[in-house]
Amino acid sequence: MKILVIYAYPNTDSYNYAIFQTLTQNFQAHHDIQVLDLYQEKFNPVLYFDQTQKRRDLQFQQETARYRNQLLWAEHLIFIFPIWWGGMPAILKGYIDRVFSKGFAYDYKGVIPVGHLQNKTAWIITTHDTPTLYVRFFQQDYGKVLKRQVLKMCGIRPVKHYSMPFLRNKNAQQRQKFLHFIQEKAQNL
Amino acid sequence: MKILVIYAYPNTDSYNYAIFQTLTQNFQAHHDIQVLDLYQEKFNPVLYFDQTQKRRDLQFQQETARYRNQLLWAEHLIFIFPIWWGGMPAILKGYIDRVFSKGFAYDYKGVIPVGHLQNKTAWIITTHDTPTLYVRFFQQDYGKVLKRQVLKMCGIRPVKHYSMPFLRNKNAQQRQKFLHFIQEKAQNL
Repeated sequence: MKILVIYAYPNTDSYNYAIFQTLTQNFQAHHDIQVLDLYQEKFNPVLYFDQTQKRRDLQFQQETARYRNQLLWAEHLIFIFPIWWGGMPAILKGYIDRVFSKGFAYDYKGVIPVGHLQNKTAWIITTHDTPTLYVRFFQQDYGKVLKRQVLKMCGIRPVKHYSMPFLRNKNAQQRQKFLHFIQEKAQNL
Repeated sequence: MKILVIYAYPNTDSYNYAIFQTLTQNFQAHHDIQVLDLYQEKFNPVLYFDQTQKRRDLQFQQETARYRNQLLWAEHLIFIFPIWWGGMPAILKGYIDRVFSKGFAYDYKGVIPVGHLQNKTAWIITTHDTPTLYVRFFQQDYGKVLKRQVLKMCGIRPVKHYSMPFLRNKNAQQRQKFLHFIQEKAQNL
C-alpha cells in the first residue's frame, strides 16, 4: 500500500514525535511510504491569490505541484498533529488551504460537492489537552472538521480518527499504552 | 472606544475587503482605531518551539510582543475573515496559535481555564460559501471555535458573530444589504 504520513509538530522532544516514530517504524516492509513533515519542510501555509494569481488557478500552481502529486500517489493518508485552539496547527490548516484546491481535490455540481480524491482512505491521529467530557459535549472541531468537512468532501473515506485526549493529565503508562495501540495499528495495516 | 480590527484576506478585489472598508470608514470620530491586516503585515503564522525556545516562554517572545500589546490596548476586537475549509485561514489560525499564549491570554486553575483578557468585547464577521441549512445541521466550526473556544475562554465577552453565508450564491443587492448592515453596526458602535 502507498502510504503518505503528514506530520505537523515543531520539535522532536514531544509525544507527537513519539507517535510519528512509533508509526513509521512499524509499517510492514512491503508498503511504500512517503513522509511529509510540514515543519521540516518549512511549508508556507499562507494561501495567497489576487487579480493576476487567480484562486481558480491554484490547482495548477507550480509551487504546490509536488504536494498534489504526493496526494494522487497515496492510497492511504495518515495525519498526525496536536489540537491547538480546537483545531489544526496553522501549518497544517494552510496545507489544506493551499493544496486541496478546487478542480484538483473537489468540484461543485450545483451546490453539491464532488470529491476527486477517490479510492483513498485516511487516519487522523491527534492529541489534545482538554478534559474528555468537555470536548464531547461543549467543544467543536477537534479533528472532526478535517475528517468530515475536508477529507470526506474530497472523496477520501473511510476516515478513522484516533485521539489521545487530555494529554497533560496522562501518566507514563497511559502514554505508553496509546503508543502500543498505534504500533499495532501500523503493523496490521 | 479603543478598537482593534484584525483582518485576514489576501486581495483587495474581494467582498471581504469591501466589508473591511465599510467598517473602518464608518466608525465615529471619537474612537481610537488600530488595524492589523495580517496579509499586509506578512504575519508568520507558524508556531515554533523546541528544547531551547520553550512553549511556556511564548508569552515573553519579543517577536510577538507588539501583537500582545495591541490586544491589551484594545477594548473591542473585530475579526474579519472568510471561512475556508470550515474555519479560519491559516494566517489567522497562526495569529491565535502564536499570540494568545498561555500566561498571557489565559491560565489553568486545575482543569478550569481562567481568561486574562477581561473587559474586552468582540465581533466576528465572516463570509462563507456553504448552503446555510447545511452549515446549521451538519457542519462544525464556521467561526464558533474562535467565538467559544478561543475568545470566551480568554475572558473576551460578549462576542457577536455576523455571517454572510453562501456568498457565491448571493446577488449584488444581497451583498449590498449586508454591507449596509455592517455600516450601521460601525456607526452605532
